[in-house]
Amino acid sequence: MPASAPDPYPSRRVAAPQLLPRQDPVLHGGPDAPGPLARDELLAFERDGWLLRRGVFSAAEAAALADEVERLAGIADETRISEPDAPAVRSLFAIHRGDGPLARAQRDRRVAGLARQILADEVAFHQSRVNRKPAFDGREFSWHSDFETWHVEDGLPAMRVLSAMVMLTPNTAANGPLLVIPGSHIVFVSCVGEAPPDHHRTSLRRQQYGVPDRASLTALASGRGVEAALGGPGDVVIFDGNLLHASGGNLSPLPRCNLFAVYNAVGNAPGRPYGGGSPRPAHVAEPAPQPAAGSP
Amino acid sequence: MPASAPDPYPSRRVAAPQLLPRQDPVLHGGPDAPGPLARDELLAFERDGWLLRRGVFSAAEAAALADEVERLAGIADETRISEPDAPAVRSLFAIHRGDGPLARAQRDRRVAGLARQILADEVAFHQSRVNRKPAFDGREFSWHSDFETWHVEDGLPAMRVLSAMVMLTPNTAANGPLLVIPGSHIVFVSCVGEAPPDHHRTSLRRQQYGVPDRASLTALASGRGVEAALGGPGDVVIFDGNLLHASGGNLSPLPRCNLFAVYNAVGNAPGRPYGGGSPRPAHVAEPAPQPAAGSP
Repeated sequence: MPASAPDPYPSRRVAAPQLLPRQDPVLHGGPDAPGPLARDELLAFERDGWLLRRGVFSAAEAAALADEVERLAGIADETRISEPDAPAVRSLFAIHRGDGPLARAQRDRRVAGLARQILADEVAFHQSRVNRKPAFDGREFSWHSDFETWHVEDGLPAMRVLSAMVMLTPNTAANGPLLVIPGSHIVFVSCVGEAPPDHHRTSLRRQQYGVPDRASLTALASGRGVEAALGGPGDVVIFDGNLLHASGGNLSPLPRCNLFAVYNAVGNAPGRPYGGGSPRPAHVAEPAPQPAAGSP
Repeated sequence: MPASAPDPYPSRRVAAPQLLPRQDPVLHGGPDAPGPLARDELLAFERDGWLLRRGVFSAAEAAALADEVERLAGIADETRISEPDAPAVRSLFAIHRGDGPLARAQRDRRVAGLARQILADEVAFHQSRVNRKPAFDGREFSWHSDFETWHVEDGLPAMRVLSAMVMLTPNTAANGPLLVIPGSHIVFVSCVGEAPPDHHRTSLRRQQYGVPDRASLTALASGRGVEAALGGPGDVVIFDGNLLHASGGNLSPLPRCNLFAVYNAVGNAPGRPYGGGSPRPAHVAEPAPQPAAGSP
């Protein structure tokens, strides 16, 4: 972005919340772009900002991935984030690095191919993680747009980025499923309040900045409400980077585990953070494209 | 209960959690008791400890009841309980008193008749309330058996008591629906830890005593899992007084509102609290039967 062009998606350094129109397409290649998704699926994604595909991975594949998560959760390092009120591991980051089973699943064209089709570009990993919501202790994630953070804190210029989530356990009404406000991706909600340095150290446990105001959330949910992504192991949800989403706590006696990859169009490489701060560490946000070349 | 008979359902004053067998029937009149429920519904209730009936009240009836709740929520007195972290009204108690629309709905035989059929007796109100889970601020209810509290703190002798819940708004995966562990009603979970006097002043906001241990919850959910009571205005859920249940927070921008009545068999009138403390106030637990005579 030239220094003279105004930022179309200002946030944090604003005096009051604003609802701003999206400047970028949702389907960057249109509804007839080639790939695994049918035209009606692409149109549903354009309208709703999200899509659930059943049985993308087999039960056996999903079980093997879940086993790998439990193995990794036992290895402590800075890429593991614990629950705010308990020692249990909440998230594991930088899953796409290396060539383990989880990274291979994220390069698999059954997932990465959906991103290439919608973004109409080669795709690179901006971030990846496992959200492992432990039994009883797994706490909620507040409402937010991922793109808001990726723009302000990581320097992604445009809404040409999306997430794919592979369910590794059942996602039920009892264990804190992904909740979305369908259609909210067509509006950018400017959030009030500047985050302190090293915000990521607390925000990954419990987000306080980059959280939309309640009036904006209520307005966007008016009419279309809130939907829950309920499904089982091997199901895949894709959602636009700007879709407002949240998830509740896990009150059930069983953990809930999902694998996330964030696919960014290679033409949308990160620049300087729009919020002016220092970039987040590489394990949370890749500073340069990490191509997600698909399996054949 | 004669002073010499041991309490079959000891709790709080125990050294360790115990899973004790239920001593009372679930269907006190058996599966052929006369009433609105069919034999297969009664057998499902016996097996699961809960049942959902769709469309018991019409949409117009449910809307009128919801309006009455909002009117009452604006009147501050000791029967109104606020959220633990916000001023919003969380619960309203003693709804069955008087002759307003909510009390009439709780005496209606479409609801009270279900209790009479299962408990095989005339029924009296032990308690009633509205749980009005406000948008954004509505917090979770921990896992518990109502009967455990009603026995220890209110002196109900036997498991011959049940709850009916009338949904006044949609109950979705996003707004903190009732969660149950099906089949858990056949076991009494002794809970460790004695509550201080006036426990009800805090327990109605956030329960800390009479909460089953995690190992017991995990064991009881093993195999049958956790189910959510999802439905819409006018749907009715009945559940056994000893069924383990909970509910999540309401993350949605819309309130979630349910009307509860606790129907006790008149032959199961409260005595001295089994925990030895003073009885709770009458607006939380009626000290003497308040007959719930049905409409014709």
